[in-house]
Formats: sequence, structure tokens, C-alpha cells
Amino acid sequence: MKQNESALVCLSGGQDSTTCLYWALKHFTHVEAVCFSYGQKHALEVEVARRIAEKAGVAFSLLDLSLLGQMTHNALTDASVVMDKEKQADALPNTFVPGRNMLFLTLAAVKAYEKGIRNLVTGVSQTDFSGYPDCRDTFIRSLNVSLNLAMESQFVIHTPLMWLDKEQEWELADELGVFDIVRNETLTCYNGVMADGCGECPACKLRRAGLERYLSRRNR
Amino acid sequence: MKQNESALVCLSGGQDSTTCLYWALKHFTHVEAVCFSYGQKHALEVEVARRIAEKAGVAFSLLDLSLLGQMTHNALTDASVVMDKEKQADALPNTFVPGRNMLFLTLAAVKAYEKGIRNLVTGVSQTDFSGYPDCRDTFIRSLNVSLNLAMESQFVIHTPLMWLDKEQEWELADELGVFDIVRNETLTCYNGVMADGCGECPACKLRRAGLERYLSRRNR
Repeated sequence: MKQNESALVCLSGGQDSTTCLYWALKHFTHVEAVCFSYGQKHALEVEVARRIAEKAGVAFSLLDLSLLGQMTHNALTDASVVMDKEKQADALPNTFVPGRNMLFLTLAAVKAYEKGIRNLVTGVSQTDFSGYPDCRDTFIRSLNVSLNLAMESQFVIHTPLMWLDKEQEWELADELGVFDIVRNETLTCYNGVMADGCGECPACKLRRAGLERYLSRRNR
Repeated sequence: MKQNESALVCLSGGQDSTTCLYWALKHFTHVEAVCFSYGQKHALEVEVARRIAEKAGVAFSLLDLSLLGQMTHNALTDASVVMDKEKQADALPNTFVPGRNMLFLTLAAVKAYEKGIRNLVTGVSQTDFSGYPDCRDTFIRSLNVSLNLAMESQFVIHTPLMWLDKEQEWELADELGVFDIVRNETLTCYNGVMADGCGECPACKLRRAGLERYLSRRNR
């Protein structure tokens, strides 16, 4: 059932947020997308997100949070930091950008407040959370309460991927009829390589393993 | 007792945050200040904050959140919006900037994270909260939890003014030995007039009423 309401999707141009965009289009009558530039090394991300929104026929806005890149030091924003190939035990991965999801969702909520939009959609997932604390369900629920208190509002944060693993995410994209779009036109790779990516970085490994599991099940 | 810890104070150059800065200097061995530009009409605020930090001998950093001014429409950031003289019943005042305190404290927390600082200090007050939902105690506590979950950290947000009215705030400034600094060198006025201000805007009225009550008690 499609709700006669508006939703704002945080869109980065990767597999997760693109799947969420199409999930939102199925569930809400009006959908918009918001994307953030924050000094990420791969500015291509933003262009990919813009193309995806255009193809999906939704309004796209870009918010400049380059301040975040200036304030933090990590492998996604700082060319001098070399990415961990594997996650270190008992440590946050050095691709963690502190406060990133909190700032993205808070700015998305400010935008939604100004436009009278109640629903926010984000592609975070606890199942494959890669060690990022701000992808976990408890954080998102706490943030939802904080946003509602801050703006005396009734935002609802939707996280359609929260409890799916990457294999199930591919299945969801397929059900939504956008398997090919998600496979070929998104950018998930930390090294900025489109679609199936570099195959070497943690994001590519995770994406590919899920894809292979899903394809072997689909083709059975 | 002074804690052998560091604190980061959100400093706007007004009465509240200046009092908090000196409160922090009394309670922590190392104090820094962070200020935000967000497209406020009175850019003087930032210069006032910088001078106050310099006088207090604490490091000062300015974060550019002009994005917030671009995204929102209200009497503090938009020259075309005329300020309400009095708060409307059952409505947020049109000086409310949605998400402002949440963004300020989240960015302050990111800065604190990068510098290994655990304590955050903000001058919000529920007693004289002027209708701003993001000045209330429940919001700040919820935000504290959200920040800690987002960054897997143990931030402690201090709100020394939360339950004080403006009269008690003047008393606190006096106890801290900075009554004259707070009275003469801060900018609280929505119309950008230093010290005792324009006398007409809601911020001046609130500040002056408290000052008069405190002075009549002090001089008794």
C-alpha cells in the first residue's frame, strides 16, 4: 500500500541508498532525494547520485557539508590516510567518519521540516554494519527521538535495510524491479570504481559476496 | 573541585554562553571554545565571541555552518522575515532555527572526538527557553545518548544554566567574578546591539528583566 505522504531519501549513489530510493517510490506518493558532499575523495559519488535521482524522476538536492571533511581525519576524506584492508579487531575502521550519519540525518530533517515532509529514509544496516556505530538500529531510534524533540516534530526514520544482509538487499532490489540499475549504475566502492567496483576494498568485498550468494540462489 | 579533564564550550558571544565559558574554566583544567557562523544577520556575534575567548585565554575555533542559514527561513537568518515582538501562543517563535542546537552540539562533538575531549558545555536553559524546543532538558539528554551511540563515545553534555532563570544567571556570573564582563562585553540582542542591547527585542527584555531583579536584590 502506497502512503499518501512525502518522503526524503538520503542518497549517496551506492547500492544501499539507491535500493532505498526505489523502496520509497513504492511506499510514498511523493519522494525527494538529498545528497551530501563532505570532502569525500571520490566526488564522482555525487554525480552518480544525481544521475540516479534523475533517472528515478525525483527532485535532487545537494547539501555542502565539506566542513565535516575539514574537521575529521579518516580514509574517506583524507588522501594521506591509507584505508585498512580489513577491519581491525576492537577498533573502529579508519573509514569511520565520526558523526557522519548523525549530521546527514539531522540536516535531512531540517530540510524535511522546511518542506513539511515527515518521512526520512536511510540505507543504514546493522546486519552488515562494518563496525560503524552510527549504522545500528539503537542509534537510529535514539536519533529519531532527538530529532523529534529538537524540532517538536513527528519525523519517522525508515530503515528498510536495517536487518537485511547484502544477499537479501540484492533480492529486495530485484523485487523492486531495479536489480540491473543497482548493479550497473551505482557506486559503492571505496576506490571510486563504478558498478562491481575494484573488488579489493571492504565495501566491494561485502557487496560482491552478497551478489554471488544471491545470484547462485536466483539461478538455481 | 576542578576536574583534570578538557571541555569544549559552545560560545556565541551572548550572556548565556559567556557565563558557561567561565563556569567551564572553574570546573575543568583545559577549556576550548567553538563558535558557529550560520548566516545569522549579525555577524558581529562571531567577533564578540572571538574577543571573549581571547580575553579568557582559551583556544577559539569557528565552524562555518552557513548551510543552515541557506536551508531555513526565520527571523535570525532571513532579512525578509520580521521578528515577532512577542511569542505567539501555540506556535514556535519565528526566531526558531530548526535543528540549530542539534547541529551545533553534533559538530562540537565531532570536534571533541577528534581532539579527545569528553566534556561539552552549552548555555541552553529550560527555565527561560523562549519556546525553543531544543533548549529543553529532555532534548539535551536524548541528544547526549544519540551522540554517544553515534560515535561509540562517552560524551558528557553540561548545561550549567538549564534550571536557572535570568536573575540566577546574573548571580552565577557574579559568583564567577565576571559580572562586568558578561554585562558589558557580550551580545545577546537580536538587533545586534552590544551589552544592554536595544531593549526592545524578546532577548533584551528577558535579559534586562533578570538583570533588574538581580541588581535590586544585590543592592539591598
